[in-house]
Amino acid sequence: MGKEFLNLMDPDDVKKVIDSLNIERKIEMVTLSDAYQRVLAEDVYAAIDLPPFDRASMDGYAVQAQDTFGASEDDPITLDLIEKIRAGDDPSQKVRKGTCSEVGTGAPMPEGSDAVVMVEVTDIQENKVQILEAVTPGTNRALRGSDIQKGKFLLAKGTLLTADKIGALSAIGLEKIPVFAKPTVAVISTGNELIKPDEELRHGKLYDINSESIANAVKSCGCIPLASTIAKDDYDSIKNKIDEYKHADVIITSGGTSAGAGDVLRQVVEDMGEVLVHGISVKPGKPTLIGTLPDEDVDIILFGLPGYPVSALMIFHGFVAPFLRGVAGVKKFMEKQKVSTLKLSRRYHSARGRSHLVLVKIEENIAHPILKDSGAITALADADGYFEVPKNVEIIEKGEEIEVLPLSGL
Amino acid sequence: MGKEFLNLMDPDDVKKVIDSLNIERKIEMVTLSDAYQRVLAEDVYAAIDLPPFDRASMDGYAVQAQDTFGASEDDPITLDLIEKIRAGDDPSQKVRKGTCSEVGTGAPMPEGSDAVVMVEVTDIQENKVQILEAVTPGTNRALRGSDIQKGKFLLAKGTLLTADKIGALSAIGLEKIPVFAKPTVAVISTGNELIKPDEELRHGKLYDINSESIANAVKSCGCIPLASTIAKDDYDSIKNKIDEYKHADVIITSGGTSAGAGDVLRQVVEDMGEVLVHGISVKPGKPTLIGTLPDEDVDIILFGLPGYPVSALMIFHGFVAPFLRGVAGVKKFMEKQKVSTLKLSRRYHSARGRSHLVLVKIEENIAHPILKDSGAITALADADGYFEVPKNVEIIEKGEEIEVLPLSGL
Repeated sequence: MGKEFLNLMDPDDVKKVIDSLNIERKIEMVTLSDAYQRVLAEDVYAAIDLPPFDRASMDGYAVQAQDTFGASEDDPITLDLIEKIRAGDDPSQKVRKGTCSEVGTGAPMPEGSDAVVMVEVTDIQENKVQILEAVTPGTNRALRGSDIQKGKFLLAKGTLLTADKIGALSAIGLEKIPVFAKPTVAVISTGNELIKPDEELRHGKLYDINSESIANAVKSCGCIPLASTIAKDDYDSIKNKIDEYKHADVIITSGGTSAGAGDVLRQVVEDMGEVLVHGISVKPGKPTLIGTLPDEDVDIILFGLPGYPVSALMIFHGFVAPFLRGVAGVKKFMEKQKVSTLKLSRRYHSARGRSHLVLVKIEENIAHPILKDSGAITALADADGYFEVPKNVEIIEKGEEIEVLPLSGL
Repeated sequence: MGKEFLNLMDPDDVKKVIDSLNIERKIEMVTLSDAYQRVLAEDVYAAIDLPPFDRASMDGYAVQAQDTFGASEDDPITLDLIEKIRAGDDPSQKVRKGTCSEVGTGAPMPEGSDAVVMVEVTDIQENKVQILEAVTPGTNRALRGSDIQKGKFLLAKGTLLTADKIGALSAIGLEKIPVFAKPTVAVISTGNELIKPDEELRHGKLYDINSESIANAVKSCGCIPLASTIAKDDYDSIKNKIDEYKHADVIITSGGTSAGAGDVLRQVVEDMGEVLVHGISVKPGKPTLIGTLPDEDVDIILFGLPGYPVSALMIFHGFVAPFLRGVAGVKKFMEKQKVSTLKLSRRYHSARGRSHLVLVKIEENIAHPILKDSGAITALADADGYFEVPKNVEIIEKGEEIEVLPLSGL
């Protein structure tokens, strides 16, 4: 059992280290029905004119506008009805002077017509249409390409594909959409005491939490958890498990990072690659490790979280999640929507020189800090979010406003 | 072609009608890995004590605390090391007066011990441990059940299962979690002009937007879109398509609701069930229809959205989405997180007596209203959210603060 003292790094410096990391961004093609909440990997230009033909924008009669000049309720003008055109039809008759065609909203404008008189200001008897109001050329008509012309810019690379954006893509008839592949993340809990729910709970054993909680937190960052699995807390087990998941973009372990525990993970990462950070001046989560493992093209990035569930999740949210959201291309959408400013329910004491990440329960717009230790599962059960106390702040007074960040995501 | 004038209903009254609707909530069992963003359907109680055994919360030596009384760096007390216990081990030796066992964080406390001396305040030579600091009974030890006792309440029915809550569930070893089944929603676009992306764009035809945009918007409400499909705009086609999806909880159509278009949808719903609303005093989206179709237990709920893509999506967000989020059990989580208060970029004129739903583009925390017609696809491409102008407001001045709602969701 060693007694290593970690070389603690300032959280801001750790964030700089993380900002310098990257993964290879691959592109894949998906159908419209699989495009939801994916990120567009290329600029998209209109493949067709929209609308694709001159169309009626109201129900009524397609006319030559000048035929209607002077028409009023007292002095209607009568036109001959020559065709009925519904949306989806292809008109066969040309509208000439003194004639008109019935059109539904969205129907193509017949040749020769230049305006639509709304049905509400007409009367019809047999094949004679009385026009009760004059229209100018272009009234209630949308010209081909008037919304967007073929070849014009429609959506930018990096756009998050929400329902409305998928609507815009479906309008131009795209069958397959280029999106960034979701980064893959292997999640590994280390610990001889850990078991999965289908195993028997013998004395000294514990149901694993981190592989499930972190794998699901990975989903909230627009990434795919490849596995949530357990490794024994020894050199060979950890190394073998990491080798097994070297096809992942990112590997997240938890446990096995404390000084004293033999510090196995650090040794594995040093032997396989490079340790960039080991120890962060933050509470909870001090013994966090960050490293890289060389791979064919781009290094695999490894985050070694602490073993306690609350610590693991707080470090994930504070340091790993922003990175994953960045490489998944969803960071800016998360930041836009998610911070709540709330009053703190009680005075909070922090330790100078170390930043704190504090879980809170929200009740009636008041944030109550959850003051349990990092092993407490009930802290997870109660939490609605968390806030950060910067390293140079010692006390936040009751009633002060804090920015509460969510534990959920996309 | 008819000339029906809709009997417009006030938006607040429409919301009351919608509030009175309901669907049957079914429960299903899912594994932890499928539980993400599902809603807990039953209260969950701790199935085991947590922690499940007395455990060390630090690396160090398990001792009888009274053996350490008086120990200091200058005057250490020496104990015999009798066992090394790592997390996951089952201790075999009893700690008696004058002895200690090495324990890793998370290891079970050996019988006879009542405290852990941190490794940092000890020295070890062969099997003799020097204790440099006294501890009181209970120090660095977590008692079985101290976090939560077996049988105690852990998580409430209705909880949204985010990563942290899934962590809490995994701690008690649950293999299957009871969650509410996601409500199912069939999405049907009506229109003879509409085609899917794999069809040829002939004159007068249009790639369908609503079935894709609304089906994806349904996902953002915690529901499952069963289909995004197209029906021709005639009585039999619409009736047959509705019959085909009568296993859905909710059916959403778009198009075919305008006065003048023959009003086919209204006739179908009247013949099959009951029309509750036809016409809302809102812009865009006036000709919206809401009805119920009798089914075995609970009625199927039908929303008939307008055909124009912007109108359809705005009515979906303004009226249908809150309902779907309610029946999916995710409403309160959405409301907590999603409104941004932003300044309006320019004066906005509305029409008295009719509420407006207005798309906005957000740039540098300023909301720019998108003033295009409801058929404009580029409005969807540009939009970042929308705001509502109440019916009794005619003008919102430039620079006034508005509440912008997102178009995305879960």
